[in-house]
Amino acid sequence: MTSTTLPMLETYPQPINLDRRKLAATIDALIACSEACTACADACLSEGMVAELTKCIRTNMDCADICGTTARVLSRHTGYDANITRTLLEACIMACKSCGDECASHAGMHEHCRICAEACRSCEQACQDLLATIA
Amino acid sequence: MTSTTLPMLETYPQPINLDRRKLAATIDALIACSEACTACADACLSEGMVAELTKCIRTNMDCADICGTTARVLSRHTGYDANITRTLLEACIMACKSCGDECASHAGMHEHCRICAEACRSCEQACQDLLATIA
Amino acid sequence: MTSTTLPMLETYPQPINLDRRKLAATIDALIACSEACTACADACLSEGMVAELTKCIRTNMDCADICGTTARVLSRHTGYDANITRTLLEACIMACKSCGDECASHAGMHEHCRICAEACRSCEQACQDLLATIA
Amino acid sequence: MTSTTLPMLETYPQPINLDRRKLAATIDALIACSEACTACADACLSEGMVAELTKCIRTNMDCADICGTTARVLSRHTGYDANITRTLLEACIMACKSCGDECASHAGMHEHCRICAEACRSCEQACQDLLATIA
Repeated sequence: MTSTTLPMLETYPQPINLDRRKLAATIDALIACSEACTACADACLSEGMVAELTKCIRTNMDCADICGTTARVLSRHTGYDANITRTLLEACIMACKSCGDECASHAGMHEHCRICAEACRSCEQACQDLLATIA
Repeated sequence: MTSTTLPMLETYPQPINLDRRKLAATIDALIACSEACTACADACLSEGMVAELTKCIRTNMDCADICGTTARVLSRHTGYDANITRTLLEACIMACKSCGDECASHAGMHEHCRICAEACRSCEQACQDLLATIA
Repeated sequence: MTSTTLPMLETYPQPINLDRRKLAATIDALIACSEACTACADACLSEGMVAELTKCIRTNMDCADICGTTARVLSRHTGYDANITRTLLEACIMACKSCGDECASHAGMHEHCRICAEACRSCEQACQDLLATIA
Repeated sequence: MTSTTLPMLETYPQPINLDRRKLAATIDALIACSEACTACADACLSEGMVAELTKCIRTNMDCADICGTTARVLSRHTGYDANITRTLLEACIMACKSCGDECASHAGMHEHCRICAEACRSCEQACQDLLATIA
């Protein structure tokens, strides 16, 4: 899979207030995390021990929704509003941290939780890196 | 339209950490704001002066996405995580404030912006009220 | 909760190819169904017998996503494309039917499934009514 | 960007009714198309000739929403329902076709429309390929 996120960003016809390369890396991390969380929620739902994974499923669903929305907001540059981007990144970092912690606690038992925890950690880090560049 | 948000909340089989009535009011305000913003973006797109409404359209799209995601997160109670709820409400309040301000500035000229600005203000207030009850 | 769906539709500045009243009723039914399904998935997740409700949770999640997207598409009128509206309504009717059937089968035991099944039936009917008017 | 879609699918603990490799390719195409459409809508919004691109923006928004929802539904396997998958793929194919046609008509003038049209074509084809395998 070759991402078209950066090529699309490079065609945006006006200046962008954030570094395009860093922005593309963050959007790609958000999309990958959202997808991993959606898949992990469903995999947990099909485990025999689902009753012990309900908090994991719920956090996965929140993280999938929040990362998906953050990717969309970061993909828009028209009428940029730093306040929305900053507070949304903060919420997203929190969701990735919570979901990463929860999945990591099941990583030894469920491979989907191990992969998902890694996607959450990468996404959290990418959001932190981008947030650090916002005035 | 009779909302089933509160009746659904009343059937949740475990304790909920937030006031169910306040929670339902906030979810309903978020849903109404998300819908108004989606419709306002499209109405702006069909105005003859669309070139002057591009910031409004973009903020509408962000606000629609963020309110929709916040409504979903607030509709889940399993494995509640106050940190996610709090930071997401803060991002949502910011989006509603920005979109409310932007739409209000066109309210005299476009009735859809006037109605949408009101939906944003109501939603911002409902989120503030709920946030104040979160430890 | 007073819906602003119809008032917003009435401010759309161009002709709309569908009946505005029927359109607003369908959008409101879709929004209510999407919210009920999100809440029902979470309520099922907190039932002691969650292991027997995994199909219900999954169908709820699909129906919530599909109804949410259909509400957004129906809220846009600029550059109307009947083919997209028609096929999406067909998919949505299928999702509402499946979810309504699944929830109805648990309605005697779980009040959230009973309310959710009703929301699915109402939404399915509203989508059918609107679809019948599309050439 | 290395996709974790296939690795996640390989950890799903139960049988899957569709070919996992084909499924992963389709999900990745849907995610890439959804992201391209979100970015293309915003790039169009910042073009000086935005008034001539309103149909393109609207179709981009529909296609982004429908592809995003289709990716989520295809990422769930618990309690699989072929009827939902089939009808949703049909709606998604229609959205990709419409959006691909619309963007292709501006591809000579706007590079973002050219890249987006390609993403729509690839996604349409992937959905067709997957649909052909569903009984």
